[in-house]
Amino acid sequence: MKRVLVTGASGFIGRHALQPLRDRGFEVHAVTRAEADLLDERAARALIRQVRPSHLLHFAWYAEHGRFWTSAENLRWVAASLGLAEEFAEQGGKRMVVAGTCAEYDWTSGVCIEGTTPLAPSTLYGASKQGLATILGAWCAQRGIELAWGRVFFLFGEDEAPQRLVASVIRSLLAGEPAACTGGEQLRDFLYVRDCAEAFAALVDSEVQGAVNVASGSPLRVRELVEKVAGTIGRPDLVRLGALPDRPGDPPSVTADVRRLRGEVGWRERFGIDAGLEATIDWWRRRG
Amino acid sequence: MKRVLVTGASGFIGRHALQPLRDRGFEVHAVTRAEADLLDERAARALIRQVRPSHLLHFAWYAEHGRFWTSAENLRWVAASLGLAEEFAEQGGKRMVVAGTCAEYDWTSGVCIEGTTPLAPSTLYGASKQGLATILGAWCAQRGIELAWGRVFFLFGEDEAPQRLVASVIRSLLAGEPAACTGGEQLRDFLYVRDCAEAFAALVDSEVQGAVNVASGSPLRVRELVEKVAGTIGRPDLVRLGALPDRPGDPPSVTADVRRLRGEVGWRERFGIDAGLEATIDWWRRRG
Repeated sequence: MKRVLVTGASGFIGRHALQPLRDRGFEVHAVTRAEADLLDERAARALIRQVRPSHLLHFAWYAEHGRFWTSAENLRWVAASLGLAEEFAEQGGKRMVVAGTCAEYDWTSGVCIEGTTPLAPSTLYGASKQGLATILGAWCAQRGIELAWGRVFFLFGEDEAPQRLVASVIRSLLAGEPAACTGGEQLRDFLYVRDCAEAFAALVDSEVQGAVNVASGSPLRVRELVEKVAGTIGRPDLVRLGALPDRPGDPPSVTADVRRLRGEVGWRERFGIDAGLEATIDWWRRRG
Repeated sequence: MKRVLVTGASGFIGRHALQPLRDRGFEVHAVTRAEADLLDERAARALIRQVRPSHLLHFAWYAEHGRFWTSAENLRWVAASLGLAEEFAEQGGKRMVVAGTCAEYDWTSGVCIEGTTPLAPSTLYGASKQGLATILGAWCAQRGIELAWGRVFFLFGEDEAPQRLVASVIRSLLAGEPAACTGGEQLRDFLYVRDCAEAFAALVDSEVQGAVNVASGSPLRVRELVEKVAGTIGRPDLVRLGALPDRPGDPPSVTADVRRLRGEVGWRERFGIDAGLEATIDWWRRRG
């Protein structure tokens, strides 16, 4: 019996993980913010006791654009996640997969490789995830629970916060307005959110443990991604590269080694950047 | 105005930190388990709001002998500590000092040096402290709060759990009974608990930030410590070195570099091992 509880199931990634998990034979129990406040420890524990999942896929976290890097909510989500993990063990859980972040890595150390690249988060968000990973690693090892920690890199997709890069460029261009961008020389690993969700479903359904980068392994310059968006919409004339100053401290390169995800988990992306951008643009267009 | 809130103030170390802090000019607010349950987040936050400390010295943790290494209470103390730190920042706190542990270090990497020796806790207790340090480091940096993290090594002193090494040897010898020990070749940094408490008071009263080993810097073999106890009591004939098997996995050496504590914090031990053992033996003798 494979019964997975998915937290953050109405979130940016989580909503797309449910069907892939069903397709892999899981009985899926989705927790959305509307249904349970996981920051209420009593409610969270009651939920685990009621579902008694064999697998826990934990996406839920504070994710408000611009604020999540520094918000005190990070501390509360660490605490809530520890309570979930404790109750999951008490109820006989077997395997836990948690969304970590590329922001755990030292972004000045080149391509991020699990277990090799130093961890040196420069934000409260990254430090909270890293600290949680340390504690859950010991907790799960002690309790005989498998733990995989999926470090998410840079995502785009439907229903992204409208101020974020891809969403804001799409919205400007669809409206026929200029899209002001930085020079865009930064190299980043971008992944379409539905490919990301399928990677997590594959990770849940595997026996791989420890940190696993969840990324495409095919980095692009921000400029290249913006140009793809503009090309798909047919308005390259509206892109204003260099109109915005580079953010101070923005690292020139944040890219992922994906040998664990491809080789050990066996994940292959189904959509890819181009199809992902088309779907995302369609979504904003329909939204009008 | 220097106003310090001390958690775990009736605990093994905490009780001895209050007077040294008063001697340094602090207005001391001591929280004991009897007065406030810090695992009750609402009560913990109310306490911080009421005291509005400029300094927070956080000792409180689950410490039951034999159980603290693996107990789920470690997870709850991480959560409680995060809540305290959040409210401390909200109430304008300036400097936070927390008791960490030598169990955060990789015990196979030689002398433990802050910032150099890899962290690789092999227990839930060590991982919980390490993870908390990571998160609090980011939180305090973001909020402009000074954070010092005192990594405690091996302590002995009055009112230690009776099953622990020094306490159990003292009790056996005072009772005229043989004290069964391992071969005792393990090298450890032992510190008398009142010297430890004074080191924390000095750390609170300094501007030193980050991890600081709280240790003597003069390691002994366990055998040598036991022989000191036996010599002080006058019953070396009752010591049975080698009567117990070495614990599997017990590391041969766990010792501390104390240059930060001595050079930067400026701490000097007042008692030392010998006077500390005498006081501890006296305490058990009076206890009869």
